[in-house]
Amino acid sequence: MFVYNAWYMAAWADEVKPKGLLGRVLLNLPVVFYRTENGMALALEDRCCHRALPLSHGCVVGDQLQCGYHGLVYDRNGLCVKVPGQERIPVQARVRSYPVVEQDQMLWIWMGEPALANPALIVRHPWHDDPAWVWIKDRYSIKANYQLVTDNLMDLTHVGYVHQRTIGGTPQAHSDADTQTTRSETGVKVTRWMMNSVPPPSYLAAHKFNTPTVDRWMEIDFFAPVVVRIHTGATDAGTGAREGHREGGLAFMGLNLQTPETEKTTHYFWSGAHNYEEGQSDMRAKLLTSLPITFAEDKVVVEAQQESIDRLEGAPLVMIASDAGLVHARRLVAGMMESEMKVREAAANP
Amino acid sequence: MFVYNAWYMAAWADEVKPKGLLGRVLLNLPVVFYRTENGMALALEDRCCHRALPLSHGCVVGDQLQCGYHGLVYDRNGLCVKVPGQERIPVQARVRSYPVVEQDQMLWIWMGEPALANPALIVRHPWHDDPAWVWIKDRYSIKANYQLVTDNLMDLTHVGYVHQRTIGGTPQAHSDADTQTTRSETGVKVTRWMMNSVPPPSYLAAHKFNTPTVDRWMEIDFFAPVVVRIHTGATDAGTGAREGHREGGLAFMGLNLQTPETEKTTHYFWSGAHNYEEGQSDMRAKLLTSLPITFAEDKVVVEAQQESIDRLEGAPLVMIASDAGLVHARRLVAGMMESEMKVREAAANP
Amino acid sequence: MFVYNAWYMAAWADEVKPKGLLGRVLLNLPVVFYRTENGMALALEDRCCHRALPLSHGCVVGDQLQCGYHGLVYDRNGLCVKVPGQERIPVQARVRSYPVVEQDQMLWIWMGEPALANPALIVRHPWHDDPAWVWIKDRYSIKANYQLVTDNLMDLTHVGYVHQRTIGGTPQAHSDADTQTTRSETGVKVTRWMMNSVPPPSYLAAHKFNTPTVDRWMEIDFFAPVVVRIHTGATDAGTGAREGHREGGLAFMGLNLQTPETEKTTHYFWSGAHNYEEGQSDMRAKLLTSLPITFAEDKVVVEAQQESIDRLEGAPLVMIASDAGLVHARRLVAGMMESEMKVREAAANP
Repeated sequence: MFVYNAWYMAAWADEVKPKGLLGRVLLNLPVVFYRTENGMALALEDRCCHRALPLSHGCVVGDQLQCGYHGLVYDRNGLCVKVPGQERIPVQARVRSYPVVEQDQMLWIWMGEPALANPALIVRHPWHDDPAWVWIKDRYSIKANYQLVTDNLMDLTHVGYVHQRTIGGTPQAHSDADTQTTRSETGVKVTRWMMNSVPPPSYLAAHKFNTPTVDRWMEIDFFAPVVVRIHTGATDAGTGAREGHREGGLAFMGLNLQTPETEKTTHYFWSGAHNYEEGQSDMRAKLLTSLPITFAEDKVVVEAQQESIDRLEGAPLVMIASDAGLVHARRLVAGMMESEMKVREAAANP
Repeated sequence: MFVYNAWYMAAWADEVKPKGLLGRVLLNLPVVFYRTENGMALALEDRCCHRALPLSHGCVVGDQLQCGYHGLVYDRNGLCVKVPGQERIPVQARVRSYPVVEQDQMLWIWMGEPALANPALIVRHPWHDDPAWVWIKDRYSIKANYQLVTDNLMDLTHVGYVHQRTIGGTPQAHSDADTQTTRSETGVKVTRWMMNSVPPPSYLAAHKFNTPTVDRWMEIDFFAPVVVRIHTGATDAGTGAREGHREGGLAFMGLNLQTPETEKTTHYFWSGAHNYEEGQSDMRAKLLTSLPITFAEDKVVVEAQQESIDRLEGAPLVMIASDAGLVHARRLVAGMMESEMKVREAAANP
Repeated sequence: MFVYNAWYMAAWADEVKPKGLLGRVLLNLPVVFYRTENGMALALEDRCCHRALPLSHGCVVGDQLQCGYHGLVYDRNGLCVKVPGQERIPVQARVRSYPVVEQDQMLWIWMGEPALANPALIVRHPWHDDPAWVWIKDRYSIKANYQLVTDNLMDLTHVGYVHQRTIGGTPQAHSDADTQTTRSETGVKVTRWMMNSVPPPSYLAAHKFNTPTVDRWMEIDFFAPVVVRIHTGATDAGTGAREGHREGGLAFMGLNLQTPETEKTTHYFWSGAHNYEEGQSDMRAKLLTSLPITFAEDKVVVEAQQESIDRLEGAPLVMIASDAGLVHARRLVAGMMESEMKVREAAANP
């Protein structure tokens, strides 16, 4: 079950090239992406209405899509505008089209009720276009439900265990951090502060601090149903980071978007960015090169979790204090699904 | 669901070697093929009645089959004639045997009621044994229902799209062809004529025509439930090809036999032959070398179709004019299945 | 369905190294094995009670196990003794622990009612620790139900067919052997004697007999539900082997333990040992080097059987005389399952 009335990241913008076709399954539905001649990204149902061949096997003709089986042509709205060999076009000959927005180097899609697709609701991530930030990105295919990926991100105490060979550091420090979880109508925010703490080796390598200890933060922002932005960093201790004075410090901005492919597979899009200062980029670049390995460690964990959960379906789990973030996130998503279902039921039984 | 009372191609004759065993699943049933000492091809159930090991794991002993597990021996009728270590042979100790006919370089099997197995019903293909024709053949394992392969062949407007990099040519020419679809009790025939048309480059390379335009034909013969023979070719324009005068032209004879392995996998046997004339074989040979690639293109399409259909099971499809051939073919097969089911039901409730 | 109140071989002792973790699915349940600091082997449920990650992704800390996700720590009884970041430990925070016995180079586990786990019931195999015997061992992953592996071992007439290229010999000799099958409360014994028979080439290569013929035996001991010990060998003919005088002969001791992983996959543990005499080891070693190939031949057969059985589920099979051993073995196992089910039902409906 998925939330449909929401914007999901569908692809990195550069995955859809001029004249190119990208077929991708999202929320169990096949979608094909392409660009018009002036570069606008579009999304249609990836299934010809004639014999079901995915349209991503076809080709782009001007601003339209031609099926690769018998040549039916669809316009940008999914309407069939040509059937080779006949004049009349059957009225049912059409495929679904989906609202698409290209923003911050990402393609976003709305899989639900088109009338509700308000682009202003899309999570912004200006760091992707800010020359003061350096970043890398990727998409991982995860064999697990998307919420297991969200869970992972909402409880960063896992860092000391899962990532002990990469970004880990001291588990105790993470557990002892001053943590606050707050919930809004559309999201959850977990804030953790490690004031006046010894910086981890990776921080020391990436930044020249003026004090032996630092004020270090982790801000995890969950935007329902699937976006998690993680802002971490540190400044010299006692210089007012907690009150908002973070200039001259080290800052890292992670973006995670776990778009469901099916109930048990996920397109895990992620990017990592750090702020840039003259003369420091080489050291900081190391922070980024560790990211693919770090996220691969998460992939191993959530896939093992999914397998374990499937083996003993319905077996109970025990909650602990650090689950607060993920519990709130799951409740939000469950609430959205329930609301949508009520609307669908009401529509079905007027 | 399958038609059982029909001849299916089971193997190319040369796939069953002297002393050799060929295990193959046909219509969801395991079958083993072997030859008697004088070369006659036989087919038995590929499952020992004792512990279910496929007999294709055993060996041929004279005209009999010996199981490779505990040495039970079966005669050509599937009757167990030896159980090592005991005198008495249990009366139920037998496996099914199936009527087999070797003809035109092919092995044909009858999986239904043996009493109805009339060899005269088998589609003939004398071109396989005619020295005036040169041919190649293969078997492709297709991950799709056999009827999707038939569909593909019954609507050749796909040639311009699926095979545009191989045998394609101009899609419009195919769509504009003068097409007639006729149905008989056991088959469907689609005839297409492109009179006085410019020959495609491959035709020009393979044959020396005396006129700048040609009269070109495609005759698609469907023999229910799974055989499709396609006869294509061209002669000099205006020399009476449509009335039957095709001497001196270029002729190509394709044979397609999509035998079901399971509901969702198919043994796709195909052969392609062209007529031979002194001094032209080199150029014509090129026509044949493109065939494996061409059929591999079809394989990609029907497998993508099957996956797409499975993803949205039951979602509607839209019919167009060029579906006439496949619609008739599917109706014929559906009728045959229905008849068989009625007979089975009547037998079950006398 | 499995027998739970029984000892199953879980691993070769050397598979669980100091500080190491071995995750293994047994009877459909995930189990993790590790050793305490003083070397004692333990088994816990391989699924953290918090977020279900297999504990085999974690690490050993002293005598305890730490989860690799959020650091929960379990003691040797499966009790959670630490939750990082909080004082209170939820009372439900625990995983199952299983009785384990290390004996004869093997780790044995009891998956049923712990109170019934009597180590005295474990099949002994002293040959693994006897310096007068040389042996090899392995574990094969078999894609078949464990009872198909047992069946294979209980009817050694298969040797002449399945292993004709390795240890086979003359099928007839095996079928004609003087065979007796006896059943006890916990097992089945099949004894086969080939008195005054010509020794097979492998025996001649491995041992210097003083007579042209030998008295040869095969003793197959089934210990329900899954252990099969096979003792084979030969002495000079007429020297009283059948009455127990086997000194100076060739002796071979095979151990087979087909522990269920799931209903359709099996951990097939096996070892093979021969007695050792000065000056003969080189030749005898050859007997052992053929074992991995021999057991791989069995693997091919039982996996093909499982596939065949699944294809025609419920189709009947025919019994023959040499099935006596496996029929008794299956009855014993079925009886054990039935008894356990009655106990469970009685407990559920008091």
